[in-house]
Amino acid sequence: MRIFKHSNGKYFASLTLNVLFAIAGIIFIAHKGGIPYLMQKLNLASDPNSAANSRENYYRHRTSLFKLLPNSPNQIVFLGDSLTDSAEWRELLGNPHIINRGIYGDTTTSLLNRIEVVVEGKPRQIFLLIGINDIHREIPLKFIVENYQQILATIREKSPETDVVVQSVLPINNQEFTRTMSNETVRELNGQIKALAEQFSYRYIDLFSKFADHRQQLNPKYTEDGVHLNGEGYLNWKEQIVPYLQE
Amino acid sequence: MRIFKHSNGKYFASLTLNVLFAIAGIIFIAHKGGIPYLMQKLNLASDPNSAANSRENYYRHRTSLFKLLPNSPNQIVFLGDSLTDSAEWRELLGNPHIINRGIYGDTTTSLLNRIEVVVEGKPRQIFLLIGINDIHREIPLKFIVENYQQILATIREKSPETDVVVQSVLPINNQEFTRTMSNETVRELNGQIKALAEQFSYRYIDLFSKFADHRQQLNPKYTEDGVHLNGEGYLNWKEQIVPYLQE
Repeated sequence: MRIFKHSNGKYFASLTLNVLFAIAGIIFIAHKGGIPYLMQKLNLASDPNSAANSRENYYRHRTSLFKLLPNSPNQIVFLGDSLTDSAEWRELLGNPHIINRGIYGDTTTSLLNRIEVVVEGKPRQIFLLIGINDIHREIPLKFIVENYQQILATIREKSPETDVVVQSVLPINNQEFTRTMSNETVRELNGQIKALAEQFSYRYIDLFSKFADHRQQLNPKYTEDGVHLNGEGYLNWKEQIVPYLQE
Repeated sequence: MRIFKHSNGKYFASLTLNVLFAIAGIIFIAHKGGIPYLMQKLNLASDPNSAANSRENYYRHRTSLFKLLPNSPNQIVFLGDSLTDSAEWRELLGNPHIINRGIYGDTTTSLLNRIEVVVEGKPRQIFLLIGINDIHREIPLKFIVENYQQILATIREKSPETDVVVQSVLPINNQEFTRTMSNETVRELNGQIKALAEQFSYRYIDLFSKFADHRQQLNPKYTEDGVHLNGEGYLNWKEQIVPYLQE
């Protein structure tokens, strides 16, 4: 319990502040609309705009679209989470075979659930980047790596000709931005992803070091929020992957 | 004040419930981490994951990417909010000239702020759909229409050769889903958008009636959340716009 970590004086000051704030909070909440407002804000009600629900709905919308899009030969798939989803890869890289199969908020678990649809098209290449949302959700590393292994195993089994390019997870910036993830964890995960790539004889790109500054933080010139990328960030990414891209 | 609308009995029952809930709330919040937790949940702190901040950051990331992407002749631009952003238009329509310039959360105000970058490329066609986020934010109709008029005027001025296809706002579904917007407002806005299209001699597509069921609600077969579209929804959209699409 916290109480033992503080001197009594500090504890009572903190307690008083908490009580005062709680009273202000009650007035504020009552003013805003009472219990329904609180329920909605705390995501206890089934609010379609809540982060969790809107992520889930987005996943359903995107995957149902992906199932209906036609497969064509020689497709180059950019596969992953919001970092993949947000870019316009075909325009950025000037290659007409590129398609985007990113989904905002995707984890190794949800990507594994949709990998079959991706490999059905027997794509020529897959550029894979996934993992930061797992870390954000504090999924144990062992579990993330097991999922990752299964993703690669499924691609190998169902589409053995596909050239998979495994990309490291990017650093995050938790100094200039309020972010709970740790770059230590990102580096640990990347070590395991690299080992998996070797195990499957897939090529591995270390994006981490190309996006990190001297503090090993995501370089602030590439981001507005410490995780996602601006145009400069995507230009940097492009530079790293052009040598791996098939014509 | 609400107190006068209730009988005294109802008022005291409601008051008691509110107080009980507030106490439970205080215990819950203290348990979760006290003031910082409350601040974060109520979006009072600068939380990069808050809906407003993440929308703003996403807008900055996307627009800075758009500025860096090369223009090429004969581009067909899909321009709008999340409904445009979430699809893979080039694949859906099988046309290599199509590019996606959708931004999740976009309003007529924020689209007007980035229209110059779009018209710089002197695209062959623009498929425009914008307005539902303005309605969600309860922007007065007069203001939305003024923005819309300015968007069209800017395109006409800076890229007079561009064939603009103005699309109606889609219905929403506030019966199966918790949505605050009204289809009455959507229809009012669509009437004004149609008038603007005529004024500029741009073609207008009535998507509303093609997505509405007999109740004038967004047909639930097209959506998981009452606003956004699944694959079936995009196939329906495709059917409506194919006759307007240039080769």
